[in-house]
Amino acid sequence: MSYLEMCKSDLNEYLKSALVTDGRAKTLYEAMNYSLLNDGKRLRPALCMATAETFGVSREAVLPAAAALEMIHSYSLIHDDLPCMDDDDLRRGQPTNHKVFGEAMALLAGDGLLTEAFVQLSRPLSGVSPERQVSMLHTLALRAGASGMVGGQAVDVELTGQDGTLDDVAFIHLHKTARLIQASIEIGALFPELPDEHVRALSVYGESLGLAFQMIDDVLDVVGSQDELGKTPGKDVAAAKLTYPRFIGVEETRKLAAQVIERGEQALLRVGIVSSILQELQSVVLERTH
Amino acid sequence: MSYLEMCKSDLNEYLKSALVTDGRAKTLYEAMNYSLLNDGKRLRPALCMATAETFGVSREAVLPAAAALEMIHSYSLIHDDLPCMDDDDLRRGQPTNHKVFGEAMALLAGDGLLTEAFVQLSRPLSGVSPERQVSMLHTLALRAGASGMVGGQAVDVELTGQDGTLDDVAFIHLHKTARLIQASIEIGALFPELPDEHVRALSVYGESLGLAFQMIDDVLDVVGSQDELGKTPGKDVAAAKLTYPRFIGVEETRKLAAQVIERGEQALLRVGIVSSILQELQSVVLERTH
Repeated sequence: MSYLEMCKSDLNEYLKSALVTDGRAKTLYEAMNYSLLNDGKRLRPALCMATAETFGVSREAVLPAAAALEMIHSYSLIHDDLPCMDDDDLRRGQPTNHKVFGEAMALLAGDGLLTEAFVQLSRPLSGVSPERQVSMLHTLALRAGASGMVGGQAVDVELTGQDGTLDDVAFIHLHKTARLIQASIEIGALFPELPDEHVRALSVYGESLGLAFQMIDDVLDVVGSQDELGKTPGKDVAAAKLTYPRFIGVEETRKLAAQVIERGEQALLRVGIVSSILQELQSVVLERTH
Repeated sequence: MSYLEMCKSDLNEYLKSALVTDGRAKTLYEAMNYSLLNDGKRLRPALCMATAETFGVSREAVLPAAAALEMIHSYSLIHDDLPCMDDDDLRRGQPTNHKVFGEAMALLAGDGLLTEAFVQLSRPLSGVSPERQVSMLHTLALRAGASGMVGGQAVDVELTGQDGTLDDVAFIHLHKTARLIQASIEIGALFPELPDEHVRALSVYGESLGLAFQMIDDVLDVVGSQDELGKTPGKDVAAAKLTYPRFIGVEETRKLAAQVIERGEQALLRVGIVSSILQELQSVVLERTH
């Protein structure tokens, strides 16, 4: 079993019982679980676990934070698929949330997952000082919010169908995708007590990995098939989204992704961090076909 | 100047510079500020400030938490007004967020405000231990999320147009409205170091005040005018919402609100909490006409 599969298995087990209601809001919980309990890669949780485990923290201790990151990711996909946004019918080969539960419930399921992420991350965390826990919460909120992911989504929406520049693409990639991947590694780095320079190097690495991830995502939208992607390919082009391939082509985008990753690896090497499990996840990101 | 007006003035000053971007996401920040910087009553922030100030904490120290509560309230109104939800054109006499910025941007403005609430509440808070700050964050997330406000919204959406029962109305009121008002008082109670029984009594009081607030809101929807409300009256009836007046009439709902408040006051009296400023805010809730 690969490291990613182990993380996925641990997380899926945890998530199964993470969102259970004894009240009347059954449909809401069904809608949240419909999108959360799917066959997602669980890359963000795995990055969080791998970062902490690199420094001797057990994966189990990290689970509430890992779940929080996946909940943020999951909510963003639900809202992103809504008719007023990307208007997508399929997600990982399954009907999107609003196709099953209707728009109002999908909107609320997204709001619920976003808020539940903060429920998870504010639960008692073994071995983590309250100071560091507040830092984790602050990091998640900053990276997921208007100065991070939501900000990237907003500029993506505004500039879709417009000319835009390579700088715009860089802003959108950095915020829409990289910030949450960066947060996954930053939050993982707050589980052990690390020197500031280690935390900073891991943050740089997380940003690089996040940028490379989105570049490869753009490439796959151009070259992938519907079977592999589990969603409709060519949607970026059809929707006139701002992407790297549109400006510099597929091959140059692939090269740029490799350069960006190289920069992140250098940051880790400079402070002497060597992690075979982060390395393994990085290979998954760089070599993925869906 | 009334206590509510003082709180409002302090908060509005704070909020003016709370959401500023130096990046490209200008429209998103405009949309967030459009809904946040309005002439709202600021009741939730005032309740939070009054609770803390009752025990000697300055209003200034409470501002980040007060801002967080108002941001949650503001996001919930933006999403509530969306076409797939209540489809409202007016809010406090002004065009609703999506009428000005479009649905996609309004959705993201709501997501941004919700997330920004947790940015605010995870900022350094003077005089608050990190343990208590984590408790505040946990309280806000639980009360605002699927087990609280979002859960209430979901059941409200599901049962609108259906027969429903008085129990359903009670569930919706408790979750959709009372939980966030309760959280305002609970979070205020975490600023000073209080005995557990004081915190519990304030929590009961907050729930009572929140329930009474929504009962009066239902009454005003029946008896209020558009000028007073700043929104379209009679919408609950037209939309076949589950409300107390629908089941027990306007006068009985008013009486019930008074009884509920009485229960909350008793809880405070039993532990010897006497607060003229909470009393003043309570009068505002009970006697409001809009």
